[in-house]
Amino acid sequence: MKLQPKRSFASDNNAGVHPRILQAMERANRGHVVAYGDDPYTATAIGKFRELLGKETSVYFVFSGTGANVLGLKAVTEPYQAIICADTAHINVDECGAPERFTGCKLLTVPTTDGKLRPEEVKPLLHGIGVEHHVQPRVISISQSTEMGTVYRPDEIGALANFAHRNNLLLHVDGARIANAAVSLKASLSEITRDAGVDVLSFGGAKNGMMYGEAVVFFNPALAPDFKFTRKQGSHLASKMRFISAQFEALLTNDLWKKNARHANRMAQILARELSKIPSIKITQKVEANGVFAIVPRRHIAELQKEYFFYVWNEATSEVRLMTSFDTTKEDIQKFIALVNKTLR
Amino acid sequence: MKLQPKRSFASDNNAGVHPRILQAMERANRGHVVAYGDDPYTATAIGKFRELLGKETSVYFVFSGTGANVLGLKAVTEPYQAIICADTAHINVDECGAPERFTGCKLLTVPTTDGKLRPEEVKPLLHGIGVEHHVQPRVISISQSTEMGTVYRPDEIGALANFAHRNNLLLHVDGARIANAAVSLKASLSEITRDAGVDVLSFGGAKNGMMYGEAVVFFNPALAPDFKFTRKQGSHLASKMRFISAQFEALLTNDLWKKNARHANRMAQILARELSKIPSIKITQKVEANGVFAIVPRRHIAELQKEYFFYVWNEATSEVRLMTSFDTTKEDIQKFIALVNKTLR
Amino acid sequence: MKLQPKRSFASDNNAGVHPRILQAMERANRGHVVAYGDDPYTATAIGKFRELLGKETSVYFVFSGTGANVLGLKAVTEPYQAIICADTAHINVDECGAPERFTGCKLLTVPTTDGKLRPEEVKPLLHGIGVEHHVQPRVISISQSTEMGTVYRPDEIGALANFAHRNNLLLHVDGARIANAAVSLKASLSEITRDAGVDVLSFGGAKNGMMYGEAVVFFNPALAPDFKFTRKQGSHLASKMRFISAQFEALLTNDLWKKNARHANRMAQILARELSKIPSIKITQKVEANGVFAIVPRRHIAELQKEYFFYVWNEATSEVRLMTSFDTTKEDIQKFIALVNKTLR
Amino acid sequence: MKLQPKRSFASDNNAGVHPRILQAMERANRGHVVAYGDDPYTATAIGKFRELLGKETSVYFVFSGTGANVLGLKAVTEPYQAIICADTAHINVDECGAPERFTGCKLLTVPTTDGKLRPEEVKPLLHGIGVEHHVQPRVISISQSTEMGTVYRPDEIGALANFAHRNNLLLHVDGARIANAAVSLKASLSEITRDAGVDVLSFGGAKNGMMYGEAVVFFNPALAPDFKFTRKQGSHLASKMRFISAQFEALLTNDLWKKNARHANRMAQILARELSKIPSIKITQKVEANGVFAIVPRRHIAELQKEYFFYVWNEATSEVRLMTSFDTTKEDIQKFIALVNKTLR
Repeated sequence: MKLQPKRSFASDNNAGVHPRILQAMERANRGHVVAYGDDPYTATAIGKFRELLGKETSVYFVFSGTGANVLGLKAVTEPYQAIICADTAHINVDECGAPERFTGCKLLTVPTTDGKLRPEEVKPLLHGIGVEHHVQPRVISISQSTEMGTVYRPDEIGALANFAHRNNLLLHVDGARIANAAVSLKASLSEITRDAGVDVLSFGGAKNGMMYGEAVVFFNPALAPDFKFTRKQGSHLASKMRFISAQFEALLTNDLWKKNARHANRMAQILARELSKIPSIKITQKVEANGVFAIVPRRHIAELQKEYFFYVWNEATSEVRLMTSFDTTKEDIQKFIALVNKTLR
Repeated sequence: MKLQPKRSFASDNNAGVHPRILQAMERANRGHVVAYGDDPYTATAIGKFRELLGKETSVYFVFSGTGANVLGLKAVTEPYQAIICADTAHINVDECGAPERFTGCKLLTVPTTDGKLRPEEVKPLLHGIGVEHHVQPRVISISQSTEMGTVYRPDEIGALANFAHRNNLLLHVDGARIANAAVSLKASLSEITRDAGVDVLSFGGAKNGMMYGEAVVFFNPALAPDFKFTRKQGSHLASKMRFISAQFEALLTNDLWKKNARHANRMAQILARELSKIPSIKITQKVEANGVFAIVPRRHIAELQKEYFFYVWNEATSEVRLMTSFDTTKEDIQKFIALVNKTLR
Repeated sequence: MKLQPKRSFASDNNAGVHPRILQAMERANRGHVVAYGDDPYTATAIGKFRELLGKETSVYFVFSGTGANVLGLKAVTEPYQAIICADTAHINVDECGAPERFTGCKLLTVPTTDGKLRPEEVKPLLHGIGVEHHVQPRVISISQSTEMGTVYRPDEIGALANFAHRNNLLLHVDGARIANAAVSLKASLSEITRDAGVDVLSFGGAKNGMMYGEAVVFFNPALAPDFKFTRKQGSHLASKMRFISAQFEALLTNDLWKKNARHANRMAQILARELSKIPSIKITQKVEANGVFAIVPRRHIAELQKEYFFYVWNEATSEVRLMTSFDTTKEDIQKFIALVNKTLR
Repeated sequence: MKLQPKRSFASDNNAGVHPRILQAMERANRGHVVAYGDDPYTATAIGKFRELLGKETSVYFVFSGTGANVLGLKAVTEPYQAIICADTAHINVDECGAPERFTGCKLLTVPTTDGKLRPEEVKPLLHGIGVEHHVQPRVISISQSTEMGTVYRPDEIGALANFAHRNNLLLHVDGARIANAAVSLKASLSEITRDAGVDVLSFGGAKNGMMYGEAVVFFNPALAPDFKFTRKQGSHLASKMRFISAQFEALLTNDLWKKNARHANRMAQILARELSKIPSIKITQKVEANGVFAIVPRRHIAELQKEYFFYVWNEATSEVRLMTSFDTTKEDIQKFIALVNKTLR
């Protein structure tokens, strides 16, 4: 077991659960309700989603982000098709091949430096269409915010969606950190999804203060009319679903999702600002959400990790990733910066 | 959405979470810990399992019972093999084909009336061994307690395990209700698993007072040295795993697992005793765990379901299933029996 | 390696290739043609199929019968669905689980004595429709002629097709021996497929005098518009496809398919008639195609197999299967009967 | 249907069958033999393979090259592992995602210009080893000769094999054109496979004068003791296997495999020599096997294809691929060169 620092910048998954969400779970723990989602908590939570994302939206809760991505993609693909994504995409590098395993599809990747795809980069992958020797591209999958801490603007998403739809493709968004993107853009969730032409969305909960639970969202329900079977066969139908639903209800009430994300983003800004004052550290990505990427002198990294754990993103360049979360404090940053200053001196 | 009765006998999944387990989750909500299981809560919970099931046991937490069954079976099979189970088995009828989908294996079923398999019933399925036209049996999977509310005695499990091992098969136990079986038998968990020769176990949490979380247990770690990859690719690696671990730790501390199961079993006994006094009702299965199966006059079922929801198990025979849980009260039973008496009069 | 008797009743796969088919293959061996089916031989062969089965028919050649069944079924199912078949079906017992592995579907089986399904036997399997815990029946698959040497009449197929379509199911026919069925019924191929309501057909070549090659036939092309991708990804796209096509062209020209099948069927009739004269032998199935099932005294079986190899179908009852083929001769039968008489005396 | 030129340089799959192979098939068409490979033709053919590749070699015949690759790779991988190959590899671009679909593995690709992998290019892909979020590299797969008409020398293969084995990986060879490589190197088949450390080989037949049929070869049988089940479940067990076996026996007798490959290679040399004399044409790859890659003025391609069909390899650069085969004649080349000269003038 790794050393357990009390505080860290390792991942927004290392944080715990927001108190209001935990309270909602406790409140849901009363009496009996029908299992597997046929309960009032789930109905309410889905209603909240529809308020934000459109009345015609299909919403299904699953346990995990990988589950959401894999099942959402499975629902809209055939095994001989392909999914186009950035080489940095979570579905490409961090899900242990689950997308290929469960969809049967090949992932076609685009090299990126900022984690973002552009239509002109996707276009060269659209060849061999109609030729049975080759996988047939069907989905463009983007991460919002990206794994590099950057954010797609609504017009960038719209351009990808238009490109996709003109080419008989769909646009999927891995929204593990969609809240961070929305607040970064000062946009509504609908503006960066439905309104921009997104077809399928993995809506993240765990990285924004929930304990567990993600949502698979189809903006056009006809895309996946039988998704409930795909979810069940994919072993992601929760028996006591009310406890996922209660979390989502809390997250989507009184803008808690925004507050959590805004706080995390703000902490990232402060962290980046402070780090950028240190001459031997170089910020490598635009800080648009809750991640800060920076080159840190290699010889000091281990020392820093002892107190505030974080991951090295690129061994070759000594680039590290620092993630903030809903519970990161200014004190965390001050202490960390002090440590960095002391260590690098 | 179905009517939401406050109390029901529909399923042990309709109950909520035991207060001590919820408290443990709250206590775990402090500071940062490394995600994905590399945290002290998980280490402690696995330690608890090893105290009960043996030091050499491999234990992996997953989100759901279907996940536990499917991944545990996948880990020990090749796609051209077969899994033998009772026709009533959860893996056969209640997992939407997830076992076939994820393992590639065929399920070979044995018709049963009491949900239990015997070696002599399994034996006829062991033909075509070594012949490539036929799937090759590799696992016998039993449910303990069974879907029919019955329980395998340790000697029955031992006989199946011996039979399995003599025939180069493994014995898998779907232990969604293993606690109910253990207390019914006044046996330790080890006596009905490791000591009896079980190879792989799905250890259930949700049906015994947890919110979510099951464990895949390999009594011989060499059976599945790479299971962590199978779990991740199977999309069952929890990011904030500490919250599953904290639940299991609470469940396995001070015999809470026993208390919950014992209570549920006792409520089933009382319910069965009271129902058996009603002339037009016939108990159809031995009541050995927390389920009561009974034939109830068809014309009264809908009326009864309005107040206390439960499922019809067999439309043809008008047999219903009544499940008790850790939170079933004597009052629940009294009121239900009163209702039955009033309705059937 | 098993002893290699020159003649046998083991299987219609033990026969060689009809001379006219081999000649057609030789004739096709001229010059270059585009690989993978974009060649005139394939166009002609598909034309022949359409003459017999309807102009709107989609026809795809594959290498093997298992390939035809598995890919044809995959094309019309989702993994959470189920395929209903007789317990004796080739797809259930003789394809090493390939259907489950490649479609993801569960096979739901109906016990039969004569290898045939009836609507009233299928009906009880249609429960849990719309409930996500359960696989959803989508296809009824029958074998024509059956693995038991029996034949569905057109009205029986029609009844199954009507039943299927009324219940939102499709009817699939494993036609590895469809020619034997057609000549047995004195019916056209269309009468027992398209006209009777069949949706998908595996049309067998190898058991009726071809070297290799089967056809997957969709009577409604809209059922599988992308089947060419499924075939390629299923590794059943032949590079030098002209040689499968030339075989089918020969088989479907001048009624060769009928002649071969009629001969095999007639030999089965004679064999059955002669066997039935022997008191200690009991014919167990109607002889409607090219298979004869008979109970033969157990102690004589090994002796008989030395000269004329055949398979024991049911060890318990000492029932054997004798298959005739396009090249079975009256002399084969006379010699075999003489041997039987001599051995059993 | 495409225009059917009598002669072409489109693909070695567009050629027919070598007469000696066809004759062997005719000779095999006598009497009955046990189906599915338990026959003397198959025993003899496997014996021929073992003479060439080692006595301890496991050899399994399948229908197609994609089948050989996919099943051979499946046999030695777990779904959470990865297969490393050149971006030009047939398994990566020409098998419609069959490898991902059937193995569950991700393909990790290395960009190449000449179709060849080097250890130093593979090495950067070996990261995240032991970390469950990432697929685990298990196989390096190379094509010999490559899709670019180049050939690995024995020492290059040896270096890859050593690298692989040091890193707990296996080396797989897609040998659809292994014969062309061997004669190009003036090496024995064993020198470029077993002796160089290859673990699994797809041995191609169809591109070297056979009608259909490839072999999956395991140099260490313990790698895939149950491969017969994988082949059957993969729907690649031929019922009348003797006809694949007879072809292989003929191919491996009296060095026919060498003669065919040597001829094809020689024709490629002549073709390349003649093309290189034409100023506006640029040969782009070393011509080491039976493929010639050349940049041809874009505006003349369609005209040339009318007479001698071939494929454009790279639309962007106007690079075309010209394949020779066992039946390419000097006259083919003379006429084609004359046509090119006339057209390009």
